[in-house]
Amino acid sequence: MSKKYVYLFKEGNKDMRGLLGGKGANLAEMTNIGLPVPQGLTITTEACNNYFADGNKLSDELLEQVWEKFAIVEEQIGKKFGDSQNPLMVSVRSGAAISMPGMMDTILNLGMNDVTVQAVAKLTNNPRFAYDCYRRFIQMFSDVVMEIEHYKFDNILENHKNKEGVQHDHQLSPEGLLGVIEDYKKLVKREKGVDFPQEPKEQLLMAIEAVFRSWGNPRAIVYRQLNKIPDDLGTAVNVQSMVYGNMGDTSGTGVAFTRNPSTGEKKLYGEYLINAQGEDVVAGIRTPQPISKLAEDMPEVYEQFVNVANLLESHYKDMQDIEFTIENSKLYMLQTRNGKRTTAAAMRAAVEMVQEGLIDKETALNRIDAQQIDQLLHPSIDPNAKLDVVAQGLPASPGAACGKILFDANEAEERGKKGEKVLMVRTETTPDDIHGIIMAQGILTSRGGMTSHAAVVARGMGKPCVCGCDALKIDYENECVYIGDLKLNKGDVLSVDGSTGNVMLGEVPLLAPELSDNFKQILAWADEMGGMEVWANADNPRDAKKAREFGAKGIGLCRTEHMFMEQDRLPIVQEMILAENVADREVALAKLLPIQQQDFYGILDAMVGLPVTIRLLDPPLHEFLPNAEELALEINDMRHEGASAEAIAEKEALLRKVRGLHEMNPMLGHRGSRLGVTYPEIYRMQARAILQAAAQLIKEGKDVKPEIELPLVIDPQEVKMLREEIEAVGKSVMEEMGVEFEYQIGSMIELPRACLLADELAQYADYFTFGTNDLTQTTLGFSRDDAEGKFMPAYREKKILKENPFAVLDRKGVGQLIELAVQKGRSVKAGMSFGICGEHGGEPSSIEFCHGAGLSFVSCSPYRVPIARVAAAQAQIKNPRK
Amino acid sequence: MSKKYVYLFKEGNKDMRGLLGGKGANLAEMTNIGLPVPQGLTITTEACNNYFADGNKLSDELLEQVWEKFAIVEEQIGKKFGDSQNPLMVSVRSGAAISMPGMMDTILNLGMNDVTVQAVAKLTNNPRFAYDCYRRFIQMFSDVVMEIEHYKFDNILENHKNKEGVQHDHQLSPEGLLGVIEDYKKLVKREKGVDFPQEPKEQLLMAIEAVFRSWGNPRAIVYRQLNKIPDDLGTAVNVQSMVYGNMGDTSGTGVAFTRNPSTGEKKLYGEYLINAQGEDVVAGIRTPQPISKLAEDMPEVYEQFVNVANLLESHYKDMQDIEFTIENSKLYMLQTRNGKRTTAAAMRAAVEMVQEGLIDKETALNRIDAQQIDQLLHPSIDPNAKLDVVAQGLPASPGAACGKILFDANEAEERGKKGEKVLMVRTETTPDDIHGIIMAQGILTSRGGMTSHAAVVARGMGKPCVCGCDALKIDYENECVYIGDLKLNKGDVLSVDGSTGNVMLGEVPLLAPELSDNFKQILAWADEMGGMEVWANADNPRDAKKAREFGAKGIGLCRTEHMFMEQDRLPIVQEMILAENVADREVALAKLLPIQQQDFYGILDAMVGLPVTIRLLDPPLHEFLPNAEELALEINDMRHEGASAEAIAEKEALLRKVRGLHEMNPMLGHRGSRLGVTYPEIYRMQARAILQAAAQLIKEGKDVKPEIELPLVIDPQEVKMLREEIEAVGKSVMEEMGVEFEYQIGSMIELPRACLLADELAQYADYFTFGTNDLTQTTLGFSRDDAEGKFMPAYREKKILKENPFAVLDRKGVGQLIELAVQKGRSVKAGMSFGICGEHGGEPSSIEFCHGAGLSFVSCSPYRVPIARVAAAQAQIKNPRK
Repeated sequence: MSKKYVYLFKEGNKDMRGLLGGKGANLAEMTNIGLPVPQGLTITTEACNNYFADGNKLSDELLEQVWEKFAIVEEQIGKKFGDSQNPLMVSVRSGAAISMPGMMDTILNLGMNDVTVQAVAKLTNNPRFAYDCYRRFIQMFSDVVMEIEHYKFDNILENHKNKEGVQHDHQLSPEGLLGVIEDYKKLVKREKGVDFPQEPKEQLLMAIEAVFRSWGNPRAIVYRQLNKIPDDLGTAVNVQSMVYGNMGDTSGTGVAFTRNPSTGEKKLYGEYLINAQGEDVVAGIRTPQPISKLAEDMPEVYEQFVNVANLLESHYKDMQDIEFTIENSKLYMLQTRNGKRTTAAAMRAAVEMVQEGLIDKETALNRIDAQQIDQLLHPSIDPNAKLDVVAQGLPASPGAACGKILFDANEAEERGKKGEKVLMVRTETTPDDIHGIIMAQGILTSRGGMTSHAAVVARGMGKPCVCGCDALKIDYENECVYIGDLKLNKGDVLSVDGSTGNVMLGEVPLLAPELSDNFKQILAWADEMGGMEVWANADNPRDAKKAREFGAKGIGLCRTEHMFMEQDRLPIVQEMILAENVADREVALAKLLPIQQQDFYGILDAMVGLPVTIRLLDPPLHEFLPNAEELALEINDMRHEGASAEAIAEKEALLRKVRGLHEMNPMLGHRGSRLGVTYPEIYRMQARAILQAAAQLIKEGKDVKPEIELPLVIDPQEVKMLREEIEAVGKSVMEEMGVEFEYQIGSMIELPRACLLADELAQYADYFTFGTNDLTQTTLGFSRDDAEGKFMPAYREKKILKENPFAVLDRKGVGQLIELAVQKGRSVKAGMSFGICGEHGGEPSSIEFCHGAGLSFVSCSPYRVPIARVAAAQAQIKNPRK
Repeated sequence: MSKKYVYLFKEGNKDMRGLLGGKGANLAEMTNIGLPVPQGLTITTEACNNYFADGNKLSDELLEQVWEKFAIVEEQIGKKFGDSQNPLMVSVRSGAAISMPGMMDTILNLGMNDVTVQAVAKLTNNPRFAYDCYRRFIQMFSDVVMEIEHYKFDNILENHKNKEGVQHDHQLSPEGLLGVIEDYKKLVKREKGVDFPQEPKEQLLMAIEAVFRSWGNPRAIVYRQLNKIPDDLGTAVNVQSMVYGNMGDTSGTGVAFTRNPSTGEKKLYGEYLINAQGEDVVAGIRTPQPISKLAEDMPEVYEQFVNVANLLESHYKDMQDIEFTIENSKLYMLQTRNGKRTTAAAMRAAVEMVQEGLIDKETALNRIDAQQIDQLLHPSIDPNAKLDVVAQGLPASPGAACGKILFDANEAEERGKKGEKVLMVRTETTPDDIHGIIMAQGILTSRGGMTSHAAVVARGMGKPCVCGCDALKIDYENECVYIGDLKLNKGDVLSVDGSTGNVMLGEVPLLAPELSDNFKQILAWADEMGGMEVWANADNPRDAKKAREFGAKGIGLCRTEHMFMEQDRLPIVQEMILAENVADREVALAKLLPIQQQDFYGILDAMVGLPVTIRLLDPPLHEFLPNAEELALEINDMRHEGASAEAIAEKEALLRKVRGLHEMNPMLGHRGSRLGVTYPEIYRMQARAILQAAAQLIKEGKDVKPEIELPLVIDPQEVKMLREEIEAVGKSVMEEMGVEFEYQIGSMIELPRACLLADELAQYADYFTFGTNDLTQTTLGFSRDDAEGKFMPAYREKKILKENPFAVLDRKGVGQLIELAVQKGRSVKAGMSFGICGEHGGEPSSIEFCHGAGLSFVSCSPYRVPIARVAAAQAQIKNPRK
């Protein structure tokens, strides 16, 4: 028996999306639940794939099934294709499993020809209607099936309107329409050398082929590439008997959502037009009426529609987006699908549906696109504002901001502190700019990608950022920036939208973010699911408080280097680095101790009752020193300008030190715990600062949970040695301060060797957190600073990598190492805590992986905590942990 | 029952080294095979460990056993400790399981006191002898046990000689010696406040404790650290009854090897002194006689000694290093051990012992220290030469070289080509210096470690190199170098010894290396063992020929970047890199094609019949361009000096390009197959050059086996795509040239992700080779260029790492990934070929690992091929593969 390629609507159901496409499956479902659906048939996606496999040919088998089922449809409707008395007309629509713009849309009125048009004129007693249908059909069919350019038909139509002296299509006389039809047919003959097909069966087969072909059109291919839709899904074809909304004032057509797609409010939301076909709504010539008005125009139909809408929503248990047509006061359903909605609407609808008992909490959580939540956590541009977009860069950190543009971090800090709203504009940012970034409303750079310094720092701070906006030409010397011919001086106002990458002139009106009650309810339910905990990365009390506000259950990563970078400490840090011996270095460290202690006091205090993981110094020391090339150029200038030998010698000494610390590959260099091994006095000072701060708080009666973390370890001996040093410091701090308390010592796992030796490391570590930024760099041999600007685009374009592995965790490589490490670590210490604190900790797909790998928590920037809470809950729902 | 801490000699055997130490075990063995050994006892290493565990205290249990066994010794000898008629005297010696300088040596004549000295005087009828023994004992005991400085005793002795007006010790009168003894005893009393111990038992216990304590003295600790000897081995103590070689002209003492330790010749080799104790031989006052002379002096004793020596060698089946004493014409054996020998001697002895039937080939191979073979493959300094060492650096590449010092690679190349012997002297070398290095006899740098560019390149070329010689201050401008106050100008002659790191003034006499027949025999046997094949890394026909000469079975790595670096190609390569579009790049590539084809023709021709693995371009393109900082300074100079705007603009354009290619971490950057993905035209050109060369040779009737290799891959899709491109080139080359042939396409595995995905990669690769340099860098997160100069010394010093992981493969981390990759790769393709071609491929311990991991071959620099052949055989012997 041959395969079934053609289904009557009544033969399918909503779960057959793969085979019948989304539209076909829903038409079938509506048919089966007894709704008034104009009957028809659906040709399967398999038939589409076979069509391509057979060299773009409709198989005999398929044709046989089409005509067999089509006969049944004729019987259902009581009309016949091409019949001179009571002819059947159909629409033909494509319908893939995944909704996909760029493919062939719709052909209406198929089955019209010179004979049937007269039958319709007679049947409806409305020649104008019949001719208009035929006219539209020829135009549509010729355009999408025969590929004759659209404007040529428009020209003919215009000519006839001019001839009759009318303005709108519907003002044309029946005779005028007949003239249009004649001219259309001539145009087809002229363009294609054949007559417009009169045989309805031929029309239908040509239309089916056109739908299949549209699966392979360039726009569709590009869309699939962008959205990672497999090429072999294929499209289904829906052939549906026509109903007419344009048969007079008791006819009409419309679309409606069962709830408001912008706000989620439970109220029918949509619009309709009396005496119109679907395309008229789109054309925008007449203004549609809000759906509520239908209650006045056709109360019975409205009531029926409300019932149908309610039925569909409770049947699908989700907000529906419905298309309908009214033909002579009779309601027909043409389509239903889950409605697209804003994140805010999704939250409200989900929460209310749970309250209505329609869905459970798990379903509600699954309805939220965790990635989209980001939109709700930052100021956004008033959608009603008129924008003057002058340039576009990469949407590097979401939210919108306005401010006076400044090119210098010091000035940004100074004016920001005075309360001015400033926008940092730089070619690129460096750690030296941090103090300026902190005080700025947003950041705009002309170079660098989504993982550049500016982007990473901005996301961490939840600050809007547009990166890599290469239209910007910054002239630091004259303190101005050019965008094409436009020149902006320091202090001029720009706005940036980090969600779109847009750069706008002047100040745009902003809407403040807020956690709605629905959002809070969703988050509360998320936490109930019992998935992984969500912690946050925070380097200061301000961020820690924000994290706590967003529901973080701890600080998973507090980086101490940002503290070193601050303007008031940097000179002491440099003194420490440039020290010629341990004694001198300890003098500088002694100055840093009270400052660091204050840092840690603040963050531990902000997180009272919750764990705070503080990572000891990680970056290579040369990051705290001036740039070698700049120094060399400065010395060169000094020479040319006749500076004193002494002054030159001093600069040269500094340059020698900088060069001495220079590294070919700083990522793989003298950093992380290697600093602790070579300069134990630095880690001792930091451990002391942390533990003294903890002791101080405990004496004040506060419950603090400090966790000291070793970065970039490779070997159990290294962890053992550094642990012993910290414990010695801990012992003396407790003795000196007369207080006893618990604290943990753990390590980051950031290198393949640490994963491979996790069982041995676990002997000396209380917990582990994965630093997946570095782990990704070393596992793939990809420098994060270099890859995006150099070869990564080619790797994605050529489909070697599906995602940027720094954004979405590489499960195959990095993930394999993580799973290995968890298994090895827990083989030594059952139940050992494992976290992740790279950028991946706030990315939903990576969070799902972490859940599967058995991690205890994810840690992300404060502004992503709500996202991570939802994503962690979704992971738990999908794959519950025992 | 208590543990046994004391063994009589007859209670032990040679396999008890761990417990009795090497000396004790061999004394026991000699006793048991019936040789004349002065009897005694050995206190175990366990007793030593207990001594430390008990807080430096001899336990009662131990004391009890010592006296119990000592009584048996007294009975064996027929003398008694402290007896006034027939007193027993003993020697006390330390003896660890591993021979260890820096520990307490020997105390002779223990048991002497004011009473027994008279008994000895009477028994021997030789008061002078007796007093001299006592005098020596007091001095030795006071020095090593009581820790009174040696020179104070020497002063007393000198005083007495002056008093008697004699020159040598043995000229002192008996009365004079008695005076010395009195003064010695007074000195002890004065220094330590106690009398010199008269009780022999007390003397013995003090001596035993001194031996134990010497295990913990600083020199011994340092030695153990350097030689990685565990601290908890402990030392044994040997207490042996004295025999006297200084009892007159029928007495004597000597040492001998059963074969010549320099050459391996089978002939007794040693020396002796008549009427002397062991220390006299060392003192060098009298010149010892060659051992053969003993045949004249004491024919019977000589014959007996020859028999004993033969017996010992055949018993131990190895060359012995024997100490003996003759007391009144009676021969006593004091020690035997395996003799240390040069590598040349080891080879000859091993080969001859196999021929004699003494040992089998496996044992012969195991006798060779593979690492030491290196000595035989390079010119060495005549050991008789007098050297003027002016500085010392790191022994970076073995062998010695002399030449005129030059600071510039171009000049080195030029003068080298003229036949002058030149030595390249640089702060560091870079790939730009290659052409100079090729023509130089050796390399000397003031910066950089064992894995610096100079060191790696030099080892690859088998060229002597001394690195990191920081005494050198090079003044490039004035073309001279300072070593302290010494100034050397360009053209002055220096010599370097890359085996020791010495730098010598002037030309030193060199000995040429040669593969002796014994060496060849050893290598032939090595190959018979059927271990892994040994291939070589070679980038040009010269190196390939050398590799073949040394027995390489293929080229495992031919780097194409070195070809790009050569002076005549670099401008074309730069043109290719600076090309603004693919078309321009292809123009430059077309110029490179015939040059590359010629390169590959040469190397394939040199290896006819054997596989040649050619790796496509690997390094980041900026390595072929000028340095950004130098360019920036040059532009700065041009500005200051008023160069034309045009000239500056041109330089600036170049600088922009260089900066555009700049990378933060080039090791993790745009290199390897990433070049092939982003610039497919480069790899296509290289594939074409390789395959055209192969086709050309095949048409000439030669059997060539090209293997094209993809560097730094991460993903199966990448390998698949590049493979398809190469295959397309292969197809058209074969069509164009009308010849069909086989070739392989494989990939290097250099990144953790490649190991983790080896099963997927294997679908598209014919073979794999591990690039363990890069794999070590990424697995440990260690930049090879940075680690040695920065943090690695601390990691080794603090025992976090036992070895430099770039020299000796890190089995725990990198090794784990290799094993995983082999297992995964072969799960897809059983029997798939895996090789290794990092620096580790020539290092014996790493080779042993590779054998265990199931690798098919190791590939190393040509000069290390013989080492690798022996090491591979040893690995196979130790752990035979089925």
